[in-house]
Amino acid sequence: MNRKPIRVGVLGATGAVGQRFISLLDTNPWFTITAVAASERSTGARYADACTWRLPGDCPDSVRDLPVQPCEPGLDCDIVFSALPADIARDVEVQMAAAGYGVFSNASAHRMDPDTPLLIPEVNPDHLALIPIQREKRGWDKGFIVTNPNCSTIGLTLALKPLHDAYGVRIVMVTTMQALSGAGYPGVPSLDILDNVIPYIKGEEEKMIQEPRKILGDFVPTEGKVRPAFMLISPSCNRVAAIDGHLETVSVELEREAAVEEVIAAFRNFTSLPYELGCPSAVNPTIIVRDEPDRPQTRRDRDAGNGMTITVGRVRPCEVLEHKFVVLSHNTIRGAAGASILNAELLVAQGMI
Amino acid sequence: MNRKPIRVGVLGATGAVGQRFISLLDTNPWFTITAVAASERSTGARYADACTWRLPGDCPDSVRDLPVQPCEPGLDCDIVFSALPADIARDVEVQMAAAGYGVFSNASAHRMDPDTPLLIPEVNPDHLALIPIQREKRGWDKGFIVTNPNCSTIGLTLALKPLHDAYGVRIVMVTTMQALSGAGYPGVPSLDILDNVIPYIKGEEEKMIQEPRKILGDFVPTEGKVRPAFMLISPSCNRVAAIDGHLETVSVELEREAAVEEVIAAFRNFTSLPYELGCPSAVNPTIIVRDEPDRPQTRRDRDAGNGMTITVGRVRPCEVLEHKFVVLSHNTIRGAAGASILNAELLVAQGMI
Amino acid sequence: MNRKPIRVGVLGATGAVGQRFISLLDTNPWFTITAVAASERSTGARYADACTWRLPGDCPDSVRDLPVQPCEPGLDCDIVFSALPADIARDVEVQMAAAGYGVFSNASAHRMDPDTPLLIPEVNPDHLALIPIQREKRGWDKGFIVTNPNCSTIGLTLALKPLHDAYGVRIVMVTTMQALSGAGYPGVPSLDILDNVIPYIKGEEEKMIQEPRKILGDFVPTEGKVRPAFMLISPSCNRVAAIDGHLETVSVELEREAAVEEVIAAFRNFTSLPYELGCPSAVNPTIIVRDEPDRPQTRRDRDAGNGMTITVGRVRPCEVLEHKFVVLSHNTIRGAAGASILNAELLVAQGMI
Amino acid sequence: MNRKPIRVGVLGATGAVGQRFISLLDTNPWFTITAVAASERSTGARYADACTWRLPGDCPDSVRDLPVQPCEPGLDCDIVFSALPADIARDVEVQMAAAGYGVFSNASAHRMDPDTPLLIPEVNPDHLALIPIQREKRGWDKGFIVTNPNCSTIGLTLALKPLHDAYGVRIVMVTTMQALSGAGYPGVPSLDILDNVIPYIKGEEEKMIQEPRKILGDFVPTEGKVRPAFMLISPSCNRVAAIDGHLETVSVELEREAAVEEVIAAFRNFTSLPYELGCPSAVNPTIIVRDEPDRPQTRRDRDAGNGMTITVGRVRPCEVLEHKFVVLSHNTIRGAAGASILNAELLVAQGMI
Repeated sequence: MNRKPIRVGVLGATGAVGQRFISLLDTNPWFTITAVAASERSTGARYADACTWRLPGDCPDSVRDLPVQPCEPGLDCDIVFSALPADIARDVEVQMAAAGYGVFSNASAHRMDPDTPLLIPEVNPDHLALIPIQREKRGWDKGFIVTNPNCSTIGLTLALKPLHDAYGVRIVMVTTMQALSGAGYPGVPSLDILDNVIPYIKGEEEKMIQEPRKILGDFVPTEGKVRPAFMLISPSCNRVAAIDGHLETVSVELEREAAVEEVIAAFRNFTSLPYELGCPSAVNPTIIVRDEPDRPQTRRDRDAGNGMTITVGRVRPCEVLEHKFVVLSHNTIRGAAGASILNAELLVAQGMI
Repeated sequence: MNRKPIRVGVLGATGAVGQRFISLLDTNPWFTITAVAASERSTGARYADACTWRLPGDCPDSVRDLPVQPCEPGLDCDIVFSALPADIARDVEVQMAAAGYGVFSNASAHRMDPDTPLLIPEVNPDHLALIPIQREKRGWDKGFIVTNPNCSTIGLTLALKPLHDAYGVRIVMVTTMQALSGAGYPGVPSLDILDNVIPYIKGEEEKMIQEPRKILGDFVPTEGKVRPAFMLISPSCNRVAAIDGHLETVSVELEREAAVEEVIAAFRNFTSLPYELGCPSAVNPTIIVRDEPDRPQTRRDRDAGNGMTITVGRVRPCEVLEHKFVVLSHNTIRGAAGASILNAELLVAQGMI
Repeated sequence: MNRKPIRVGVLGATGAVGQRFISLLDTNPWFTITAVAASERSTGARYADACTWRLPGDCPDSVRDLPVQPCEPGLDCDIVFSALPADIARDVEVQMAAAGYGVFSNASAHRMDPDTPLLIPEVNPDHLALIPIQREKRGWDKGFIVTNPNCSTIGLTLALKPLHDAYGVRIVMVTTMQALSGAGYPGVPSLDILDNVIPYIKGEEEKMIQEPRKILGDFVPTEGKVRPAFMLISPSCNRVAAIDGHLETVSVELEREAAVEEVIAAFRNFTSLPYELGCPSAVNPTIIVRDEPDRPQTRRDRDAGNGMTITVGRVRPCEVLEHKFVVLSHNTIRGAAGASILNAELLVAQGMI
Repeated sequence: MNRKPIRVGVLGATGAVGQRFISLLDTNPWFTITAVAASERSTGARYADACTWRLPGDCPDSVRDLPVQPCEPGLDCDIVFSALPADIARDVEVQMAAAGYGVFSNASAHRMDPDTPLLIPEVNPDHLALIPIQREKRGWDKGFIVTNPNCSTIGLTLALKPLHDAYGVRIVMVTTMQALSGAGYPGVPSLDILDNVIPYIKGEEEKMIQEPRKILGDFVPTEGKVRPAFMLISPSCNRVAAIDGHLETVSVELEREAAVEEVIAAFRNFTSLPYELGCPSAVNPTIIVRDEPDRPQTRRDRDAGNGMTITVGRVRPCEVLEHKFVVLSHNTIRGAAGASILNAELLVAQGMI
């Protein structure tokens, strides 16, 4: 790209995911942060003063002196990344889109809206065809909302995609062991997780049942909507004592028979449209398959591909369904801020921004 | 019991499970420790000197001055508890049984021997009918070997038992999140588990596939052996950063339909033969069902019933199979030393010792 | 004691320390819980409903159905234990004492009030002579306030006491490694402490500088007040990833020379007035000295003496001051709820209640 | 540097520190790894096969196919980095130096040898004057041994250096909270450290007493040796549950009075000779001083300056000595492999290699 960086804002910029957005955008060659917005409590302060930086190292210099603004139209930027909580995101994102901003949201509020793309660039880039439909339906001129899936969905869905394309995935049993950063900050109290496992994450299983079906569904032009994939998914979600990285044990039933080697080959041959288009956050390969019996491991593999690669391992026959394997993804990069940024990059690469 | 305590020995007394045996036996009213045995390295030393005590508190006074003896016949006791590694247990346990000792083994060596009971007193006490067959086949006079299952099997199998009795369990999908003490000492290096999950435990999944089928199988008097339950089990075993307590997410397919309330009632109504017989390690209830959405939790529930109760929670319909739930058991008490001691108590209560 | 149990209430009963009070009082033979009080949010609810129980196991049956009342006079009990935050404790505790209740407070609000005992029963029981002075000064009839020290102070001060009596402690350098439960619930976010150490605990060092001097000070009857011990204390307080147990490295300069063996003997010979008086929470010994080079350890030693014993180890010469050692105490039992209950027991044993 | 990269070998290349050497050297522009050596067990195998890679990510491609050789002369390289255990290092390092290799050792074996530099390039580069003396004494032609200090020493000594230069450090009280990686692999068993602190690290306190005095000592040309700094150091060493990063609370007594602002200024103004010379591993600043009350924190600050910067915080008056502060350093980079590599870079930059 020889054009000027696109001016972007971050909504919910002081929170855990917001900081991850800031951190990733700071070194992104296509975007430059020109606005940060947060709740009223912080409005008016310098970003560096409003925000207790909790990622390793320091708050990037490029945003330290930006004034924190309210989460509403008037931000000096073309697109916004939303790290807002779902209940606040619901209205704010609509207001922003109506005011002409491109909204890339990590919030769950609009993910299942029929006219809104729930996008993983490597999986369902054709779902962007929903944008004109969304604009028309909502009466938006140039604004739009594009969402990315929940952090536990995204690793699973990326792993399912090559299998679904080649063999048709019919049934998915998945147990997650999810990292603490998925709960935001302050999030999980330390007394709740040290020497412990919590077998419950509110709302998570519901998302894992629905979201992959939409993402893996077909956009039907004649109907102007996405027909969900027919797929039964049974998730069991757990919180474990890891900082970053969601590990998932997965069993799948396929429509068409496949040998273990074919399943592995499907993972390994998976290609990435955003990588081919030169998106700076895209990685190659998107899926790493490890051969060691005890990998992927949360701490050792989460940062593969700057946190944008997912790692699969232990691909083997399942005693009940057809195959089982383990998949790991970095939940705040691949599963949240990095996902949203890659979404925006895809639109840029396709000339939609 | 108004009789004198039974004199017991512990094989592998200095290791992690051995220490747990010592700790539990020290306060058991039916047994008194009169012999401790370990590898040659320790032989001859006082137990307190040979053993670096790693459980909370101190080595019990009653065993501090016992001399560590070799793991071979000649121990001054009637029965022995074996905390030996499988490869050593294989021969030693046979030697001890041949020499007339009752052997209660936590090792995996003989669990799947057709003539050897793989016993959970609340589940398959009738499998003790294998003992005379074992004696006859092996030419043993009064000795015998009784084994208890693997630590990850026992919680699962206790939870399956009431469902199997009432509705017939046909398919089991299980993902475990297992504690560090299951790997013994030194076991898992800290660099391998802090801020990490390891999706692999060597040999564990094989045990979980086989053992429940034997335990839940039927002893067929006419054949003199146990016919394994017909049941497909697909386990995925993981190590997490918890000291004690194996948490498992389980989905089951039943032969006969059951409502969620019926499944819960089956858990709650489960009764315990060893408790009825007054065995001191038996607890009532054997299975606690919790109603909170986020329980059982490893640290908060593992010590229920002095570590002998298993805790079930999140009983709910499964999107793929029929029901799913979470089960927790204390792996070194209910799943190892406590299990073996309860096995011995059952034989005492039934006049077999 | 052949008298009826004393009726007690707990202020701040639903919080972390409040639950610890409930848990310990539930099995205390001298006290019976007849009232629980908490913030307005919980008032009116059953205790079991108002309180998410976070200690291992379940909320004791004896309090499940008690109604949560407001923290103000009118509670049906004779004495109250206060687990209130300092800012709320300040006024509420005075109101309760004025209304005739004996107040045993774990809050910091009144610890340094000149007319208020800052009590460790084994250390400064004579400071209870402040009670009549307090009553007279405040115009209270039968009510009073007795406080216990901060959780990091109490282990240190118990260890200093025998040295101070025998040799005079002049200088103390102490670095603490404090457990998470010391911060209450939700307390320390897990993202702040996993794979981390935080070298700061707000307000903690100030308390460690002042409180030991008051506790080890002399009550001067003619002045009606406590003259603080002359002692320089330099604390450095850190938060580490442990559930319970404050470990402290300590170096001391003594007024009169002492050999290492004499220091150890002073620890070992330390006697406990409340134990001699038969107080049920008192233990003997109060101080355990361990010989192993790597003890005390937080998890392995915190529960010694039901959490009421402190454990000292690594007693050795200091390269700068005279001696150094390590001390461990259970911060929510010995250092908070258990401390306050033992304070109350001392008053009962001495006929002051 | 426009010269060809220097050919280097790594002794003990498969262990924890050895892997860190490989990882850092792989991207170092001045060095290229041409030989890897390890114990006999691994000899002959490809490095990638002999070594279970335990750092995040994968073993670098550049070394995967190198054959593992024995730790003895004959390695195809000019200098070697030694990650050997002390007992093996003692003889091997001498053999290598005698055979003409420049040896940069992380082992403790020769650190305190009077003719051997114990080097921190920013602190005592003039101690390299020992090399000709070492060669002459030992009869070595071009080989030599240069050591770096223990991981807990190096952060402390870097922090003391600017204070010692400006004000003269006389007394140091230090308590360490050291990470698990300092113990190598497998190192500390997870059962020993989860929910725990171990107040003891074998041999560590002895090193912290001696090493800083040698490093901060004066090389006296007329005597041909280093006169140790006169300084009393009292260390208390603890192991905590962190992966990397040694945090230390430090109190110092200075010879000449200094205000807190002057101490902070001394830290901030500290300059680095290797940085000025363009050494690729050198960073600027060497010492970061943070103003937040709760920093440095182990996980959040250990990677500052690619792990080569130390971070100081909480600089404040000490109630007993003159000042106290907290210092953090990355123990396997700044405190081990990175330190040794920077040592080698200094010799290269000064034309000694």
